[in-house]
Amino acid sequence: MNDIKRIETNQRMSRVVCYAGLVFVGGQVANDRSENIQGQTRQVLAKIDGWLAQAGIDKTRILSAQIWVKDIENDFAGMNEVWDAWAPEGAAPTRATVQALLGTPDTLVEIAITAAGSPTAE
Amino acid sequence: MNDIKRIETNQRMSRVVCYAGLVFVGGQVANDRSENIQGQTRQVLAKIDGWLAQAGIDKTRILSAQIWVKDIENDFAGMNEVWDAWAPEGAAPTRATVQALLGTPDTLVEIAITAAGSPTAE
Amino acid sequence: MNDIKRIETNQRMSRVVCYAGLVFVGGQVANDRSENIQGQTRQVLAKIDGWLAQAGIDKTRILSAQIWVKDIENDFAGMNEVWDAWAPEGAAPTRATVQALLGTPDTLVEIAITAAGSPTAE
Repeated sequence: MNDIKRIETNQRMSRVVCYAGLVFVGGQVANDRSENIQGQTRQVLAKIDGWLAQAGIDKTRILSAQIWVKDIENDFAGMNEVWDAWAPEGAAPTRATVQALLGTPDTLVEIAITAAGSPTAE
Repeated sequence: MNDIKRIETNQRMSRVVCYAGLVFVGGQVANDRSENIQGQTRQVLAKIDGWLAQAGIDKTRILSAQIWVKDIENDFAGMNEVWDAWAPEGAAPTRATVQALLGTPDTLVEIAITAAGSPTAE
Repeated sequence: MNDIKRIETNQRMSRVVCYAGLVFVGGQVANDRSENIQGQTRQVLAKIDGWLAQAGIDKTRILSAQIWVKDIENDFAGMNEVWDAWAPEGAAPTRATVQALLGTPDTLVEIAITAAGSPTAE
């Protein structure tokens, strides 16, 4: 089964799974949830950067992103402000953003992504 | 990085991303949001047809669809009526439909899909 | 078009779609929705086991899971209890769990997954 590579696996989930040139990063949330939408979005994107690095790639390889915001009316603009500054110029992924209650009441944003594996590793 | 092809990319997102024989189309919503669920669903599916055409494929190549409906109790049947008429006979994708508040209050439906790339292009 | 394999296809959806070494299983819900979150989660995971078997694989090949829970505050723990007991040791997928109203009011949980195809079949 060496064709599937899993990173930080516990009994419930893996943080990253790599297969067939694809890299799946599960839903990421902020650790410090006392922060506002900008702060939480920054934390989430920093986590994603870290997981991508562990998979040997970076954010220019992201294909698709799913974003959940707890309060889309009030926090959509704040999330987008941080996202737009972070997204790599000319290499933004497809995206879908919807409102959803998340794992804990103080979680304001969660992001999961699918990326392309390293072009040199294949 | 020519292994990833992005269509209509701005600083926030691409409308379509193609990689490794897969075609990702981000969440699509209706432009004219004064329309009801049937009208908005028709607009969304027409947009998806257009993006697929830009990727050199059509709806018979869709693998998986994620559908968000703002009011699933009242609009699930109306969305399905338009979807069922549009879905290609014998080639419908997997699907998951859930309720979610979307980017603007008058958005009644949003659909994102993953498709298979052109069999001749690979 | 033999490069895409669809299982249990009707006019609306396929239950499983296989392509390019990937297996997509659409959103699964319990048939007996009089059951509580533990019972419904068990039914959903049993269905997923069945679909994976039809695709020639098992749960150790799951790459990514999307879980929707109707009442995340009250049912997150119950869903996780059943999930954790079911997830294959050392081979858990990435995961994202959010709250959403689902197709019928008595549906407490829905799960969709993406898996890796059979290593021997490719």
